[in-house]
Amino acid sequence: MQKTEFKIVPIGKILKDSSVNCIEIFIEYKEALLELENYSHLHVYWWAHEFDNPEQRTVLVTDIPYSKEDTKAGIFACRSPERPNLIMDSICKIRGINAQKGKIFIEYIDAFPGTPIIDIKPYIPCVDRLKKAKVPKWFPIQWGEWLPDKGIS
Amino acid sequence: MQKTEFKIVPIGKILKDSSVNCIEIFIEYKEALLELENYSHLHVYWWAHEFDNPEQRTVLVTDIPYSKEDTKAGIFACRSPERPNLIMDSICKIRGINAQKGKIFIEYIDAFPGTPIIDIKPYIPCVDRLKKAKVPKWFPIQWGEWLPDKGIS
Repeated sequence: MQKTEFKIVPIGKILKDSSVNCIEIFIEYKEALLELENYSHLHVYWWAHEFDNPEQRTVLVTDIPYSKEDTKAGIFACRSPERPNLIMDSICKIRGINAQKGKIFIEYIDAFPGTPIIDIKPYIPCVDRLKKAKVPKWFPIQWGEWLPDKGIS
Repeated sequence: MQKTEFKIVPIGKILKDSSVNCIEIFIEYKEALLELENYSHLHVYWWAHEFDNPEQRTVLVTDIPYSKEDTKAGIFACRSPERPNLIMDSICKIRGINAQKGKIFIEYIDAFPGTPIIDIKPYIPCVDRLKKAKVPKWFPIQWGEWLPDKGIS
């Protein structure tokens, strides 16, 4: 029989002020950063902890942000933080790494300071970058160098 | 103080035989598929349940697959399923959706039948697709239409 629950542990947290965006990896994981300096971008998987309650984890349908129309979408058809498992996935540009201190300085991340980080993976074009991908009409078809509020460059 | 553990629940599982690759979303989540038919590709987040033991969840450094050299990398610098949190992220092409039955038919996924699915998000070029991304020399710089064992097209 399949296990009905899995455990996630934070491996770091977001540090942020007006000029610095940083992923702080807890010191016991710092060896896991080996070779990361050879990549330019990474996936930061974070836990939308402010939504970790039974009400928001049982939402199935939500309003589409950035759509001018009154469009609703299932939470598996959008990136809403209200979802059964609060896994969020942001692609970030690396500005610098201090592996000894477990710090990854990044260009920007759309998460608040103190947010728990649950995984880091490198961005690898041969598996992450698709030439053709269809999306609903409310999204622009363009490169991932733009977000409505802030570029991810 | 930050919570030290979060709970993940499976929202579906992988069904697979020689001709069919399918994400089965448990029926209580089927409404969350609304609008997914307007996308061509999705991120499938799955739990590498076969590695869910204290030994494999504490691995920090591993050999690089597909590298001809004897290269080691931290698990945050590769996609190894041995990692603190067993979150795997595969981008899959949608072949068809039967929302009433909670089924998403896909081209291919690099996970075994019965693997627990923990999240689904649409692939959105304006946040997922980067024009320029640096990777170590053992990766080809190309589009995500190819994998060493099987195309993801």
